Amino acid sequence: MVVTHPTTGEQLSIGIDVVSVPRLRTALENAEQCGCDFIMAPLVHPRYERVFTQGQSWCHEGSALVRVSSAASDNGCAAIVRDEPLTRSDLELSSSEWMSGVIGKVSPWIRLESPNDYFRENSEMAFRQEISLASHLSLRAIIINAPTSGSAANFSRSMNSALSSLRHVQMWIRIPATYPAVNGKSDIRDPWDVWNTIRNMCDSHPNLGIVLEIGENLPAKNELERWIAEPVKILAVSTNAFVLNKVGYPVLLKKHQDFVKIMFKYGMLFAITGRGSSARLRGAEGYRQCVQYIAHLFGKQPPSTESEAFEAPFRDYLQAPLQPLADDLESQTYETFEKDPVKYQKYREAIALYLSEKVGSSDRIVVMVLGAGRGPLVKAALAASADTQVPIDVFAVEKNPNAVVTLENLRLENEWSNVSVIHCDMRHWEAPARADLVVSELLGSFGDNELSPECLDGATKYLKPDAVSIPQSYASFLAPLASTKLHNEVRAYGDTQQNFETPYVVSIHRGRILAEPQEVFRFSHPNRSPHPDNTRFKTLEFKILEANMVHGLAGYFEAQLYMDVVISINPPTATTGMFSWFPFYIPIRNPVYVPKESTCQVQMWRKASPGRVWYEWAVTRPAITPVHNPNGRSYWMGL
Amino acid sequence: MVVTHPTTGEQLSIGIDVVSVPRLRTALENAEQCGCDFIMAPLVHPRYERVFTQGQSWCHEGSALVRVSSAASDNGCAAIVRDEPLTRSDLELSSSEWMSGVIGKVSPWIRLESPNDYFRENSEMAFRQEISLASHLSLRAIIINAPTSGSAANFSRSMNSALSSLRHVQMWIRIPATYPAVNGKSDIRDPWDVWNTIRNMCDSHPNLGIVLEIGENLPAKNELERWIAEPVKILAVSTNAFVLNKVGYPVLLKKHQDFVKIMFKYGMLFAITGRGSSARLRGAEGYRQCVQYIAHLFGKQPPSTESEAFEAPFRDYLQAPLQPLADDLESQTYETFEKDPVKYQKYREAIALYLSEKVGSSDRIVVMVLGAGRGPLVKAALAASADTQVPIDVFAVEKNPNAVVTLENLRLENEWSNVSVIHCDMRHWEAPARADLVVSELLGSFGDNELSPECLDGATKYLKPDAVSIPQSYASFLAPLASTKLHNEVRAYGDTQQNFETPYVVSIHRGRILAEPQEVFRFSHPNRSPHPDNTRFKTLEFKILEANMVHGLAGYFEAQLYMDVVISINPPTATTGMFSWFPFYIPIRNPVYVPKESTCQVQMWRKASPGRVWYEWAVTRPAITPVHNPNGRSYWMGL
Repeated sequence: MVVTHPTTGEQLSIGIDVVSVPRLRTALENAEQCGCDFIMAPLVHPRYERVFTQGQSWCHEGSALVRVSSAASDNGCAAIVRDEPLTRSDLELSSSEWMSGVIGKVSPWIRLESPNDYFRENSEMAFRQEISLASHLSLRAIIINAPTSGSAANFSRSMNSALSSLRHVQMWIRIPATYPAVNGKSDIRDPWDVWNTIRNMCDSHPNLGIVLEIGENLPAKNELERWIAEPVKILAVSTNAFVLNKVGYPVLLKKHQDFVKIMFKYGMLFAITGRGSSARLRGAEGYRQCVQYIAHLFGKQPPSTESEAFEAPFRDYLQAPLQPLADDLESQTYETFEKDPVKYQKYREAIALYLSEKVGSSDRIVVMVLGAGRGPLVKAALAASADTQVPIDVFAVEKNPNAVVTLENLRLENEWSNVSVIHCDMRHWEAPARADLVVSELLGSFGDNELSPECLDGATKYLKPDAVSIPQSYASFLAPLASTKLHNEVRAYGDTQQNFETPYVVSIHRGRILAEPQEVFRFSHPNRSPHPDNTRFKTLEFKILEANMVHGLAGYFEAQLYMDVVISINPPTATTGMFSWFPFYIPIRNPVYVPKESTCQVQMWRKASPGRVWYEWAVTRPAITPVHNPNGRSYWMGL
Repeated sequence: MVVTHPTTGEQLSIGIDVVSVPRLRTALENAEQCGCDFIMAPLVHPRYERVFTQGQSWCHEGSALVRVSSAASDNGCAAIVRDEPLTRSDLELSSSEWMSGVIGKVSPWIRLESPNDYFRENSEMAFRQEISLASHLSLRAIIINAPTSGSAANFSRSMNSALSSLRHVQMWIRIPATYPAVNGKSDIRDPWDVWNTIRNMCDSHPNLGIVLEIGENLPAKNELERWIAEPVKILAVSTNAFVLNKVGYPVLLKKHQDFVKIMFKYGMLFAITGRGSSARLRGAEGYRQCVQYIAHLFGKQPPSTESEAFEAPFRDYLQAPLQPLADDLESQTYETFEKDPVKYQKYREAIALYLSEKVGSSDRIVVMVLGAGRGPLVKAALAASADTQVPIDVFAVEKNPNAVVTLENLRLENEWSNVSVIHCDMRHWEAPARADLVVSELLGSFGDNELSPECLDGATKYLKPDAVSIPQSYASFLAPLASTKLHNEVRAYGDTQQNFETPYVVSIHRGRILAEPQEVFRFSHPNRSPHPDNTRFKTLEFKILEANMVHGLAGYFEAQLYMDVVISINPPTATTGMFSWFPFYIPIRNPVYVPKESTCQVQMWRKASPGRVWYEWAVTRPAITPVHNPNGRSYWMGL
């Protein structure tokens, strides 16, 4: 059974972690009776420790060693021939049942990290046997416990070897959110660090995932939320994490609830694991109630907001930034942006606020909409004029000939007698009048990245001396970003210099910024300098709280439209409900490890030549990366 | 004038660093009279500080600002038009004189690292002007002073930008070996760290070089010798580094002399710079004497040894390791190795030592030469038999049919009645007798990398119970290696996964191992295990003294031929005069920074399948790299 949200129809899949499975079909049926649709099950009897040597194998069950014959197979692993089968037959379930109902578990006695050569090599052979079986059964994934002590090096090599050779098997590392205290000392090791070693040694293989287990104790929020940026595939909630409420039913404490609710947003599987601290939670009935509780929490999740719903299909999907100056936008693109329920309302407010200062003015106010597109700002200006009863004349300047068609039709249909439609690049327009107010919406996700500064500088020549620009100013913001997902998405396009020297527009979902964004480049308009300089250079320093990997930078903007009317996609100040912009993701080719309580120093340049504008960037602390995109070789904005 | 070594004919080019150059030809002539063949000269008058703004330029000389017209050029730099030329005409010298006689210097007032926006941007424009001029003049290189304070970020970006856009101009960063003490505190910054920042931000561009300046004070030997692994193009010896001897001539102190002598080996240019601490050293005559002294030191260098001469043409030249098991060697390859003056002598000693224990034995000793090639070990065995008067029967087993032709001819020509030539793979030979002694030379640069363990294991079946193998055992050794040069050589083949997952055989010249090599994998023969396991896993930890970059691992071997007769290419124990093996270079794709007094942890695996043997490797401290070459995907040795 998959849990379905009563109002949104979203689904949650919950499973049960089983220790031993006498009969697989029975285990699946039991799980189903608990409200689950999959089990995490050992593929081989957990106590069946095989013993291999090169080209031979023994099996021992209990204390008896039984020698069996064997033949060398292609992967160097002894192929075992013994009187009894290794495990149950694949015929016990249908292929589709294996695939949907069972997630395999590697035998717990296998210790790929063992310092003992003999035991480690033996573990490697047994491990290869089991992943080969998982591949044969077309399982979704096979789960292996992260090493609990010592070096993760050989464990990681074995994972990497398996991931490289079995291209279709997902390998999920099972790791607790916190290690149990040892001798009264907790947090001896950071589980994230163990994961990070494995992940890095496996070169962030896309088939490597995590089964994150939460028990009675949870680490600090900052530590816990790091997992958001990691490929968690199952959140395994231990029965130890549950407490009994007044009427004896299992519930989660607030902190656990909060984390579970966050993880609901990331489309992962859930599972119930462990034996339960209370007798009440042991056995099928206890499990059933825990599953019911998770399903209940899921059902109580508020439905998505409008902008969440808009964003959902675009999550972690990389898009090339628009280049509206160099390219003409398509009708569909205009339509999408015009639907924003907040943005044009903010413009209308800003224009009205400006016009309200002009009440009683003897002259009609000249408003120039620069980049009028299909007219939303013209409408906002006309509405603001009506709001304030301040008469205006509007020049709607637009360079895209196709949008001009729309504008001219609008003017006729609406009998906009005070609107002139001008088909012209605003930078080259020989204006017949001087503007009191220029209104534009030339901002990209990173503020200036659609060349608003250069376009508006080109319009300065037809402004009155006291003219105002809406927006009055805007600034870009950056924060270091951890996101294995986005980095892997770039790699999937090809692990090339060019792909890693290009910023992307993306709804960042499986990612987490590691510090509050800081202002990078600010531009104010009108800029009356005879030679406006829109190149910039900024060094930023971020305080990092928890050890993490920096996979790139998240970029945002804030714009002051007029006085206190502001629009923003910068998380701390973001305008609610506005969905016109996704953030920028500016990748770093080789991710940088940032230790706990370290400083991450970022260098950012905005450079220009007569035909192009581009960014260059580098991380210079704690490690030094190459300067990305020198001379705009991989990415630039055409003037 | 180029200085020529009196006996070897090797050449040294010495130059003079000049501060201002009223007439270039005169300066070149003066330099020549000092015994020099080039000058380091400013391209523009050092006090001519130009002032630019976007699209315009001013020049100010003294305190007057003169506005001049300008036109925008393609690289965003204002093209200056002024009444006076920027600098002297290119006609002052011929093209070949510019190229051979002048190395340009960027104006000293240019401060690309300035925190002041205006001054920094102005510096960038002046810098672009000067490197454009250097490119126009086809100079060998242009020299710029490393930033003396603050962040090197914008300096590095400017270098990287220039290197990316002007593909043929070498940019050499001038940096002192030690910073002068400030307020009594020396070593506030490590010059190598400044260089390392620049280098990393420029992604180790192959056209980026170093002018290393040594003055009165030298840093500790360890710190100083780091420069060996870096692209030092000029060693600039300050007149401050000289002292006057009893008769008033300038000489270098021992420590300076030692460093200069080391640097002679690296084929760089030398230059005399500075104003001299003593009046005696000022002016042309002082310079001439300093130049003479350097030339004198150079002339006193002992001529190359035979193995140095052999090695010279192969320095830093990457070769694929031989695969003599999978491929048949060519005649030329045999010829090269047979010339080794030491190796076969050691084998003869080892065999004789073994045979000397058999004096008086009633049976003839059966010696099997496994992989006899063109017969050098057969000759060594026969010579050892003659040395000891112990009679032997030799089986010369060789799988290469072409080498068998040579062996059979040798047997006839020399009337070797006690030698049988067997054309067979030693692993599959049905031997007619049992061996007392097997002699083989199956070792590669990294010991086992030509599959000696697997080959010799295949021969165990035709050994007598007390048989001995020469070599008795061998081990590979590894050390972390800094070598921008070798890493760039691999990149030059293509910055691909495969190229960085392949070990190379290379005479490491511009490289430096950062700690004493440690033993990795050891093999002993005969290995009488019924199922010999030649897979290995080793974790190594190296203590790093000075901050450095690890570009990979240097690999060596030591082999115990018999008892105390050893051959080795491992630096601390290397056999003098033996030139048959160059070291292994095992690259790391993304170099790892190791801080001063840190630990570098390396993981190394030898893995095997029925058809292949391969290595995998990773660095896991202080940073974690991916496991290189999983499953031997990029490099393996065929069985």
